[in-house]
Amino acid sequence: MKAIVYHGKEDMRVETVPDHVIQSDTDVLLRVERTAICGSDLHLWHLDSPLGSAGFVVGHEFLGRVEDIGSAVTDIAKGDRVLASCTIGCGRCASCRRGFYSGCAVASQGGAVPNVFGFSAVYGGGQAEAVRVPFADVNCFKLPERLSDEQCLFLTDILPTGFMGTELAEVSTGDRVVVFGCGPVGAFAQRCAQLRGAAQVIAVDPDAGRLARAAARGMVPVDPTREDVVARILELTGGAGVDATIEAVGKAELVAQAAMVTRPGGKVAVIGVILAPIEVPWPIFFNKNLALRTGLVNPQVYIPHLLPLIEEGRLDPTEIISHRLPLAQGREAYEMFAAHRDNVLKVVLTP
Amino acid sequence: MKAIVYHGKEDMRVETVPDHVIQSDTDVLLRVERTAICGSDLHLWHLDSPLGSAGFVVGHEFLGRVEDIGSAVTDIAKGDRVLASCTIGCGRCASCRRGFYSGCAVASQGGAVPNVFGFSAVYGGGQAEAVRVPFADVNCFKLPERLSDEQCLFLTDILPTGFMGTELAEVSTGDRVVVFGCGPVGAFAQRCAQLRGAAQVIAVDPDAGRLARAAARGMVPVDPTREDVVARILELTGGAGVDATIEAVGKAELVAQAAMVTRPGGKVAVIGVILAPIEVPWPIFFNKNLALRTGLVNPQVYIPHLLPLIEEGRLDPTEIISHRLPLAQGREAYEMFAAHRDNVLKVVLTP
Amino acid sequence: MKAIVYHGKEDMRVETVPDHVIQSDTDVLLRVERTAICGSDLHLWHLDSPLGSAGFVVGHEFLGRVEDIGSAVTDIAKGDRVLASCTIGCGRCASCRRGFYSGCAVASQGGAVPNVFGFSAVYGGGQAEAVRVPFADVNCFKLPERLSDEQCLFLTDILPTGFMGTELAEVSTGDRVVVFGCGPVGAFAQRCAQLRGAAQVIAVDPDAGRLARAAARGMVPVDPTREDVVARILELTGGAGVDATIEAVGKAELVAQAAMVTRPGGKVAVIGVILAPIEVPWPIFFNKNLALRTGLVNPQVYIPHLLPLIEEGRLDPTEIISHRLPLAQGREAYEMFAAHRDNVLKVVLTP
Amino acid sequence: MKAIVYHGKEDMRVETVPDHVIQSDTDVLLRVERTAICGSDLHLWHLDSPLGSAGFVVGHEFLGRVEDIGSAVTDIAKGDRVLASCTIGCGRCASCRRGFYSGCAVASQGGAVPNVFGFSAVYGGGQAEAVRVPFADVNCFKLPERLSDEQCLFLTDILPTGFMGTELAEVSTGDRVVVFGCGPVGAFAQRCAQLRGAAQVIAVDPDAGRLARAAARGMVPVDPTREDVVARILELTGGAGVDATIEAVGKAELVAQAAMVTRPGGKVAVIGVILAPIEVPWPIFFNKNLALRTGLVNPQVYIPHLLPLIEEGRLDPTEIISHRLPLAQGREAYEMFAAHRDNVLKVVLTP
Repeated sequence: MKAIVYHGKEDMRVETVPDHVIQSDTDVLLRVERTAICGSDLHLWHLDSPLGSAGFVVGHEFLGRVEDIGSAVTDIAKGDRVLASCTIGCGRCASCRRGFYSGCAVASQGGAVPNVFGFSAVYGGGQAEAVRVPFADVNCFKLPERLSDEQCLFLTDILPTGFMGTELAEVSTGDRVVVFGCGPVGAFAQRCAQLRGAAQVIAVDPDAGRLARAAARGMVPVDPTREDVVARILELTGGAGVDATIEAVGKAELVAQAAMVTRPGGKVAVIGVILAPIEVPWPIFFNKNLALRTGLVNPQVYIPHLLPLIEEGRLDPTEIISHRLPLAQGREAYEMFAAHRDNVLKVVLTP
Repeated sequence: MKAIVYHGKEDMRVETVPDHVIQSDTDVLLRVERTAICGSDLHLWHLDSPLGSAGFVVGHEFLGRVEDIGSAVTDIAKGDRVLASCTIGCGRCASCRRGFYSGCAVASQGGAVPNVFGFSAVYGGGQAEAVRVPFADVNCFKLPERLSDEQCLFLTDILPTGFMGTELAEVSTGDRVVVFGCGPVGAFAQRCAQLRGAAQVIAVDPDAGRLARAAARGMVPVDPTREDVVARILELTGGAGVDATIEAVGKAELVAQAAMVTRPGGKVAVIGVILAPIEVPWPIFFNKNLALRTGLVNPQVYIPHLLPLIEEGRLDPTEIISHRLPLAQGREAYEMFAAHRDNVLKVVLTP
Repeated sequence: MKAIVYHGKEDMRVETVPDHVIQSDTDVLLRVERTAICGSDLHLWHLDSPLGSAGFVVGHEFLGRVEDIGSAVTDIAKGDRVLASCTIGCGRCASCRRGFYSGCAVASQGGAVPNVFGFSAVYGGGQAEAVRVPFADVNCFKLPERLSDEQCLFLTDILPTGFMGTELAEVSTGDRVVVFGCGPVGAFAQRCAQLRGAAQVIAVDPDAGRLARAAARGMVPVDPTREDVVARILELTGGAGVDATIEAVGKAELVAQAAMVTRPGGKVAVIGVILAPIEVPWPIFFNKNLALRTGLVNPQVYIPHLLPLIEEGRLDPTEIISHRLPLAQGREAYEMFAAHRDNVLKVVLTP
Repeated sequence: MKAIVYHGKEDMRVETVPDHVIQSDTDVLLRVERTAICGSDLHLWHLDSPLGSAGFVVGHEFLGRVEDIGSAVTDIAKGDRVLASCTIGCGRCASCRRGFYSGCAVASQGGAVPNVFGFSAVYGGGQAEAVRVPFADVNCFKLPERLSDEQCLFLTDILPTGFMGTELAEVSTGDRVVVFGCGPVGAFAQRCAQLRGAAQVIAVDPDAGRLARAAARGMVPVDPTREDVVARILELTGGAGVDATIEAVGKAELVAQAAMVTRPGGKVAVIGVILAPIEVPWPIFFNKNLALRTGLVNPQVYIPHLLPLIEEGRLDPTEIISHRLPLAQGREAYEMFAAHRDNVLKVVLTP
């Protein structure tokens, strides 16, 4: 089959690789219909030293039809159109039972492999013509036929991630909220904050194009290249600060800004990916009784809450798609996304 | 001053009564700018035997300017435009500290008087040119000058009551919700369910005009005079039932219907006023693990969450106003509202 | 095998019945080591008209060793000592995913059969030498070898039911709590209320022996045959009423008492089984903003919280055992328990 | 009056200072009956450069009789025995209404002064014969006469602080918990974790005496001078890690240890005082979906939950008192407490 294969820094190639096969009774095999490139794929793209032994298929945002099925799968059938959660859980261990599939020691083989698609050869990715999904009853979700692929695709990762931001920040009715970042995840965090009844969603991004899109979606734009972000947010909130702050960029220094703009007793959620220790301005957190939360997304938990919103037309995730390309142009797609070229926000690929 | 005075069944009269005066250090006196008739005023209108000794001023939805002020009031000043919570709390007792101002034994004098405006001579009502507000620091809320009277007026009671319905029913993102009743309180319960991210809000009402208005506000209308309500709701939810049901009419038999249409583990909230014991179909509640909640509203708790939504333009409470009349026509207003004449939904009065 | 078989009103017989066999890939077969009679078994005992076609094996509190195992079971192995949740869930449907296994439409075949052991021939009971457990990965829980059978047995039903009472009533640190009923479930509700940090647990029961045991466990006893229960509870709480009330008897009239003794904003949980509609004194619930909750227990949810307490010696469920008999004396055990003879509180049977 | 006065690093002196007087209508004046030295007083003791203009009276743990009273105080009367919350709130502002009295901009004069007793001349401390309490209706709590001073004294600060640790860490029934630190605050956090139903409370402290006391109170002791703390905690929890971790020492490096010993989805609360930025091992927090919380205590919120536990004999705060001295020996008391001499745990002073 054709697939996008990781070969190291800034080196993704569309290649022919061996077809996936069912390896376990609980696996299914999907014929991929639609896939997308995630910001976390760019972390891989930018890594200086290759992750593990390169040569694996990438991608963790995908959906398709079930082509083959293990003997112990009970709830998914051949021909079903399903998406797969980006994080893989066994569904049985203590961590999965608590809803932390991302902490599944079974799927991660005791922490030895990433239990996410597309970051090792163990769970090959979905930027491909086909993909194997383990623990299929747990990780696959059937899709209503009347919804399009593009309407559902982002349920695999970034829509739940954005929503998780609003959960971790406990956004509730009437809140004033700031979201740092207007990329795909930030855009969904903003939209979910609106859906939860935020009175005001302030969006911060230095990219003028992304900021303009956020404003068009009803957010209050703040441009850090032109304004003092902290002063501006305090002004917008009558000096009080916001109830909840969501960092959706992945920059440690924004955690300090988050603390400064949040009111006493408010919440700070970090859903941007930060892979190093960070210095936290503790006295602010202490004096203001702030909560600081982060984590890997567990789409299994959030999909049942988000899918009905799409079904009933209250949420249209396709609003963030800026580019559609064939899988065969995967390399060009990565290059464009990495370079923020052509006002790209989200690229969808079709095998 | 002029005021609407209760004289017994279907007998409200606009009369001249003595001016209110400051009675306690913690009182303020408001010059009323706008007031409204509430569905619970109609309970009074319809009562067969007069409540207490008639002759008191009615009305618990009002706002105005502070004209006089007790010596121990610290946060409200003469000239402030404020609204008053319909329920009156002292702010200090154990019940008030928990947010149940409606259970305040101080304001209710140990349960001897209703601690709501307009249901006795102790706390005379606001359908008048002026009104005394006790424990003013607790029960008055200053209003932003840029908001109109009509935008704020319903924060006194029915908007918080509708919102309380969504709190008691724990409406959350992606829920499917049914609201029985499209009157003023039901309309706000529906709107608040949307604001909290309900995927689907089903509105039930036999009044075709009210139902059409609900549909125009984005609800899914169900007409009990033409459809089997239980069957239709189950059909709309793929057989699963709704996550949350809000009764906003005040009919005991709807509690049984609510149980039938709610999914296992769902929530039933009753915000319609029912003044007699009711028979609950317990086996349904038991087998489906349903919660049943009700209560008097505590606007003091909800106003801080609702006012920002009005300020930021996410919620426009004026959408329910159908009629505007001078206070002098109070009697006609009651008659029209009681008779559901002229497609009335909500009447605002101006002294 | 030997088993207790239901033949109608007050007619339970120890008989020889065909051995259970594995019927589905997800079943296991347990060799029962210990079983017990539950208060809900007495509902069956007292029923005037026989439930369904009599002749089935009863009992839903049991544990034992795994003797045989279906091919799709992944987490349980032959030889494991396990207990089974009394309610049976598939673990996959929307209701199970929300934690309401008792509402599982798969296990209940769309509501056609009770998805509880021992109430029909479909899921034969565990007052027997052996029992079949369906969806074993979901409904079986492995037990630490260092714990005795008797320490674990009540995790199948009544300990989680008692705990559920404290969950539904939201018992939290410093609360004053009343529990109506000092039977096995009431005793566990009382103990769990203590474990959650209740400041005061008031126990009400007309049975002097049971009340004395409750007092010995640290509860404040109230005897309704000698005291005015409502007056006494108000006195014990300085007139304020309790924060939370748990009905663990199953009498509709106690729901009204519960409302009277609970403070504004408090919670009423009904874990006693009431199989008919009940009249609820609605004005009290309304004026006091009370929540009313009930439901079938889902031990699958509570076992992970309760087992560690037993393991660490903070909770000793054997404290309620009053009688130990061989399974062969099952009929006598039922008669004694039904008649409250011999100060019986809980009977454990050994096959 | 006699009082302990701060003069700079390691310099506290018992001196005669002017009597306090009522400054505002909402003040009361207390005649102090009992006071204590807090760990945060030692922060002052150890500070290299003097805090503000030295010469103020210290101490924020105290209780006494009301001697004089401002004209706007409504709920406290002369002769009442009351304690005062260590943090001072106005009770009216948005922050106080949310329960974050510590964030009160009114009491802190916009952040210009610490709104805690005994850290400036504005709110002079209670290690004195008398003390002025501002916003008395909000910050004073009447005490039942049948409780002793010593039973109530720690409600002013460290008992609520310990309890707050269990709130921030969301300790619930059946949890396994670790508390770093067996000083006064750690001891209360441990005790409160037990009260909330923790199955296992692991106590860590290098001070052998304090650790032995913790073991005597039922905690599982871990000595970091003899054991690998992380390895030991993982061993004690079967490799899973604890559900909740409370840092009650105030050392940044323990935040990293906390992350290592907490299970995926667990909670880390820091109630030890850390006055500098800290480096947080972010990838652990991210990969394990950990929450990190901290804050100043708001005793006003917790006292209503903790006082009933003392009243009903479920909690005996005097268990941590190791020394009782006259106020006149305040200097010696500070020296002993700062030096950890004489196995000191908590010193109570009597004027």
